Amino acid sequence: MKSIAIVGSGAIGGFYGAMLARAGEDVRFLMRADLDTVRRNGLRVLAPFGEFRIEHPRVAADPAALGPVDLVIVAWKTTSNPELARVLPPLLHERTVVLTLQNGLGAEEEIAALVGAERTLGGLCFIGINRTAPGVIANPVEGTLTLGEFRRPAGERVRTLAETFQRAGVLASVTDNLDEARWQKLVWNVPFSGLAIAAGGITTDRILADPGLAQLARDLMAEVLAGAAAVGHAIPDSYADYQMGRTPPLGAYRPSSLIDWAEGRAVEVESIWGEPVRRAAAVGQTLPRIEALYFLLRALTAQRQART
Amino acid sequence: MKSIAIVGSGAIGGFYGAMLARAGEDVRFLMRADLDTVRRNGLRVLAPFGEFRIEHPRVAADPAALGPVDLVIVAWKTTSNPELARVLPPLLHERTVVLTLQNGLGAEEEIAALVGAERTLGGLCFIGINRTAPGVIANPVEGTLTLGEFRRPAGERVRTLAETFQRAGVLASVTDNLDEARWQKLVWNVPFSGLAIAAGGITTDRILADPGLAQLARDLMAEVLAGAAAVGHAIPDSYADYQMGRTPPLGAYRPSSLIDWAEGRAVEVESIWGEPVRRAAAVGQTLPRIEALYFLLRALTAQRQART
Repeated sequence: MKSIAIVGSGAIGGFYGAMLARAGEDVRFLMRADLDTVRRNGLRVLAPFGEFRIEHPRVAADPAALGPVDLVIVAWKTTSNPELARVLPPLLHERTVVLTLQNGLGAEEEIAALVGAERTLGGLCFIGINRTAPGVIANPVEGTLTLGEFRRPAGERVRTLAETFQRAGVLASVTDNLDEARWQKLVWNVPFSGLAIAAGGITTDRILADPGLAQLARDLMAEVLAGAAAVGHAIPDSYADYQMGRTPPLGAYRPSSLIDWAEGRAVEVESIWGEPVRRAAAVGQTLPRIEALYFLLRALTAQRQART
Repeated sequence: MKSIAIVGSGAIGGFYGAMLARAGEDVRFLMRADLDTVRRNGLRVLAPFGEFRIEHPRVAADPAALGPVDLVIVAWKTTSNPELARVLPPLLHERTVVLTLQNGLGAEEEIAALVGAERTLGGLCFIGINRTAPGVIANPVEGTLTLGEFRRPAGERVRTLAETFQRAGVLASVTDNLDEARWQKLVWNVPFSGLAIAAGGITTDRILADPGLAQLARDLMAEVLAGAAAVGHAIPDSYADYQMGRTPPLGAYRPSSLIDWAEGRAVEVESIWGEPVRRAAAVGQTLPRIEALYFLLRALTAQRQART
């Protein structure tokens, strides 16, 4: 890659952008809230392997000031995607590739509709990361990045991109089935992020300590598997066992959606809960518990938006 | 009836007790919170037909000071039923009959376990009623009272009791199938009382105005019908249509469970949401949306109790 633009330079975008910049890539950051601070103080990352700062990153609030570039990484929340139609065009030349690192289902489709399916890539971030202050990103848990093509097996392009991330110190891997990987990630996200919000703003240990919520988490996982199977992905039951089993060691963990909710920010209700329900329904599979949770979360978040 | 004890003299117990006392019945009130006020000021009812006051009702906090009586009317919330084992015995003579006017499923079973199935009656109150101040009950909407035997068709005993209520000005009727009548009442209560709480403390008009919540209400109703069918009660789909249709005219209605929740009082989670799920499960029928709502409501109310 010759040049990279990061769209949405919060925790995820700021972290991966800073890692790539630190490795010498030409990274440019589209940001709004932290723009002045980052211009003044640079972009600071507190990682397990140590701390570093990108001193004078190229930052702007206007995409025309950053592009066109060879690679766009979309890293803001899916709730901001309606802005992509405005933000992406100035970042594109004829061969620009767009990688979404967003949660849930549907982001690749939104991007493909704007730039074409053949230029669309997706990635899943399994990582603990927070923006702790303007321009400061804490990455307490080293994680992995899974990259894939939109509706195609991975090819040379994705492998080259994974190598770029690996050279930058990111544990990147490649999947031939991005859509299945997205459904797999939902196996944990749908129950634990959803119940954390709907059951009153509670951490994952309290979900597990409540027998009803723990059973509901299990049943929600089973519905994610049923939805995945309905659209053609055979995720084994043992994967749900694994996801349940890895949760107790997380302790009083706050899923990122709960943090968004608790801090009054938008929650990715459509991509995490709405889209799996719609995709399963499109092939005749009802996911009743996920749908109920989706409708409740949609109502709860809509009420908050109405108040603010 | 020669003598009647009201167990739980809040809105429901206070109202029906006052109506019976006004008609000349020997009514005795078991009460705690409002005891001193009612001793001093009497029991006041603001009804559609006018206002009246029972000047010096016989009231006590100790059941031994009231009984034994011929009829006990249990009118507190089902969440207080663990106290029945202590409260009922002093109120009973050999032929005392116990009538529960409580919500949801399971109250007759709890009472039958204490006094015997043959002495157990149940009733359903379709009425708008609130305790607006200590000893003051507002009854803005005249309603009906449906009486039945526990697991038996109605007989002479229930008809006589209904006549007693009718003489007191209460629109009482008799059902041969109390259990089915209880499932019918859940058709409205499960969705609207439950979503009013779980969707953030909202009135029924806001449930209907949200397309997702309105659909979920519909789907929850369908599950109540499925549960009823599984235990042997054929409630037609048109009954759900009727219950949906009667809701918009209620306007910004606050179900009594929402009022309980909003005012920090106990919510009848087990009898309204838990027991239908358990009864359907016992005959092999899963009610996934009601179960999800039940687990969420149980967790939400348990958290509140843990805080207080």
